[in-house]
Amino acid sequence: MEKVLSYIESNKEQYLSELTELLSIPSVSSLKEHQGDMQRCAQWIADHMEHIGMHNVKIFPTEGHPVVYSEWLEAPGKPTVLLYGHYDVQPVDPLNLWTSPPFQATVRGENLYARGASDDKGQVFIHLKSVEAMMKNEGALPVNLKMIIEGEEEIGSDHLDAFVEEHKELLKADLVLISDSSMYEKDVPSICYGLRGLAYMEIELTGPNRDLHSGSFGGSIHNPVQALAEMIASLHDKNGRVTIPGFYKDVRTLTKKERAAYKKLPFSDKKYAKDLGVRELYGEKGFTTLERLWARPTLECNGIWGGYIGEGAKTVLPAKAYAKISMRLVPDQQSAKIAKLFEKHIKKIAPKTVTINVRTLHGGEPAITPIDSPGVEAAVSALEKGFGKKPLYQREGGSIPIVVQFKKILGIDTVLLGFGLPDENAHSPDEFLNLNNFYGGIRTSAHFFNELPKFWKRPSKKR
Amino acid sequence: MEKVLSYIESNKEQYLSELTELLSIPSVSSLKEHQGDMQRCAQWIADHMEHIGMHNVKIFPTEGHPVVYSEWLEAPGKPTVLLYGHYDVQPVDPLNLWTSPPFQATVRGENLYARGASDDKGQVFIHLKSVEAMMKNEGALPVNLKMIIEGEEEIGSDHLDAFVEEHKELLKADLVLISDSSMYEKDVPSICYGLRGLAYMEIELTGPNRDLHSGSFGGSIHNPVQALAEMIASLHDKNGRVTIPGFYKDVRTLTKKERAAYKKLPFSDKKYAKDLGVRELYGEKGFTTLERLWARPTLECNGIWGGYIGEGAKTVLPAKAYAKISMRLVPDQQSAKIAKLFEKHIKKIAPKTVTINVRTLHGGEPAITPIDSPGVEAAVSALEKGFGKKPLYQREGGSIPIVVQFKKILGIDTVLLGFGLPDENAHSPDEFLNLNNFYGGIRTSAHFFNELPKFWKRPSKKR
Repeated sequence: MEKVLSYIESNKEQYLSELTELLSIPSVSSLKEHQGDMQRCAQWIADHMEHIGMHNVKIFPTEGHPVVYSEWLEAPGKPTVLLYGHYDVQPVDPLNLWTSPPFQATVRGENLYARGASDDKGQVFIHLKSVEAMMKNEGALPVNLKMIIEGEEEIGSDHLDAFVEEHKELLKADLVLISDSSMYEKDVPSICYGLRGLAYMEIELTGPNRDLHSGSFGGSIHNPVQALAEMIASLHDKNGRVTIPGFYKDVRTLTKKERAAYKKLPFSDKKYAKDLGVRELYGEKGFTTLERLWARPTLECNGIWGGYIGEGAKTVLPAKAYAKISMRLVPDQQSAKIAKLFEKHIKKIAPKTVTINVRTLHGGEPAITPIDSPGVEAAVSALEKGFGKKPLYQREGGSIPIVVQFKKILGIDTVLLGFGLPDENAHSPDEFLNLNNFYGGIRTSAHFFNELPKFWKRPSKKR
Repeated sequence: MEKVLSYIESNKEQYLSELTELLSIPSVSSLKEHQGDMQRCAQWIADHMEHIGMHNVKIFPTEGHPVVYSEWLEAPGKPTVLLYGHYDVQPVDPLNLWTSPPFQATVRGENLYARGASDDKGQVFIHLKSVEAMMKNEGALPVNLKMIIEGEEEIGSDHLDAFVEEHKELLKADLVLISDSSMYEKDVPSICYGLRGLAYMEIELTGPNRDLHSGSFGGSIHNPVQALAEMIASLHDKNGRVTIPGFYKDVRTLTKKERAAYKKLPFSDKKYAKDLGVRELYGEKGFTTLERLWARPTLECNGIWGGYIGEGAKTVLPAKAYAKISMRLVPDQQSAKIAKLFEKHIKKIAPKTVTINVRTLHGGEPAITPIDSPGVEAAVSALEKGFGKKPLYQREGGSIPIVVQFKKILGIDTVLLGFGLPDENAHSPDEFLNLNNFYGGIRTSAHFFNELPKFWKRPSKKR
């Protein structure tokens, strides 16, 4: 690894200039006028894969933008990593808020500013460079490696599931590696090992068969807005726990190790509340804020409406009231099961004064890659070596659908090795990649490939 | 009265043809193209007042449509009645749903169909005809009478308050008589002696300082939609009573006589629920449905909104949630006082996790004309004589602002003598006036003027 690391050290300028070239291609997947740039960018990546020594490089057309594939499978007996990333970027509007042109990567201070610098071209490029460094200096990789870099992540990855499904055999691997997220904060390398799932419901309450005059009818009819409020209010108890029977049944208990790990993360309830502009936080009693955000399920009203919502006063006793309610799920809750529990409960608590209609709008499974799994342990070791600092463990409260899909279609877990920063302006003007993270990322990537086989040998612990 | 009644009987055809003429003028106050018709209609009414023997007939211009005034004050020592009505009508759209042309009054069965037949030209005309019958046959009225017939009721009576305020002296009277409402139902003459008031509020809850991702932040923040639901849910107790401290303090207790009177009205909870399409009614325990509608205050959510309310799923934890909440008030609650109680309470129950903003959007006082007051007693006697049937007592759950304004500006109560029917299609195609009610109304009007002085002599009971 010494040669590899010194190669990386001495090629920093070269790496930066290559990345600048990649970032100059305006691969905005959502805009028709960039159709040609999408092709050009896919080709650039493919050419670069050839250049660093990957085999079987292919640009697969899809019904949308193409997927770039390559592999290097010369490490028999070693684990196979499937690297996933995307070469498409978000639009750049409002252009006038950019300090430097979005497709003309510019170093200011310790950051490289450009659209896609962090999300996700820069992070994809990190792995290309570690592969190059290993190939150039050792002539081989310590693992088998497959790469798929898609062009539709920013527009919903609409054709990826079908692609993965169709190329199941080609994509067969032992774990997925994704660098498309952030470290916990600057100088705090972290490993994200869990994501929450989702069950998103919509309910429609019907009271009277028409909108009524609230004067002429008020006092005789259960207002469906009131009924809805009463039902929603009852969905949490005074300890902030969701009251749906069976809701917590499949929730995996936080281990002592996890709780201890979260406590090590720099986090202040006070600062967090101040940043969000609230006087007090809220949530399930008995858990810290980070535990509630990452490892506990929640129920949120994403929307509510009913009656008159324009300017001024209208004396209506409305016929209908609606709410969108979603639940964030954690392992081992299952989206469909929770949706059913919700539906059963909400119908049960609906008073006889109204009728209720419930729909499931969307669902997604939670995901976890155990912190004592070989992939995570290799990542932890690699981050420590790459950044000179023991990384911390974190989860993410949101969902990354592709992680769930890889688990579902290919049956494998994902390691999320994020080299971005929380304030990096992904999707906004002045997106940047911190250069320490860029170079530290390349070192970490090399270490990850190097460490993985060591951990892989260890018998996996039974959960 | 015998001569008066036989005159009415023998002039039915004539009355109908005159009313048909009045109804042929398309006095749609809201439409600019009918500006000339408004003038024409005011003039028609003024001419007719002259014709029946009213004095001092005047068309007062306002900033909107004119008010027609007249008086007959030759009954010294007798009470003075101020008759209020309106000659403007609602638009006729959708025209294709009318069975006969809206401004070509047509008799079908026992009804006269035309725009304004019941609301309110027909009901105004009822009183003109009783005055005519008395003048022609007795040369005088048994009371002093003033009339104001306005042209802006259907567009909010915007200039009436100013008119009444400006002509306070001219309009001085002992009671107001209004026929612009309905009987309880066909063949059930009734007297409406009370209206509810209103305090209409809007609340805005703010949680975090921006919309948040419900995955990344859910579990740490009190969702303002949830907080709002919790607050709204707490505004009624399990007996359907409003929980705002002091809310019921000024509510006038229903008298035994009133409760007995409401029991006499044909009313079926089952039929009412079926008509409205609900399986169960709702309201304050300990009161019948009619009592709750007419004599008990209520609190209704007229509107609620917050978060994502479009199609499909958006995983937002919203920054804001809003509700429009109004309270219907009964004597002797006061709108401003109740608004204050509401504001104080809602701020008190708002959790520390959110900030709250409360606005009063609208207010109006409740009104009651005691059922043992001379005006109501005269009306009851007149209805019995006019329709051959003892009338029943009712109130109305809504508000008629002009009643409150007359009380406020002139200091007098109103007698609501409605000759319409609940299903008369006021404001809709095929509006009609039942002809039995038309002729019974004329008889009742004559009896009312005749009876009033008798009851007026009685010392008024102290409440």
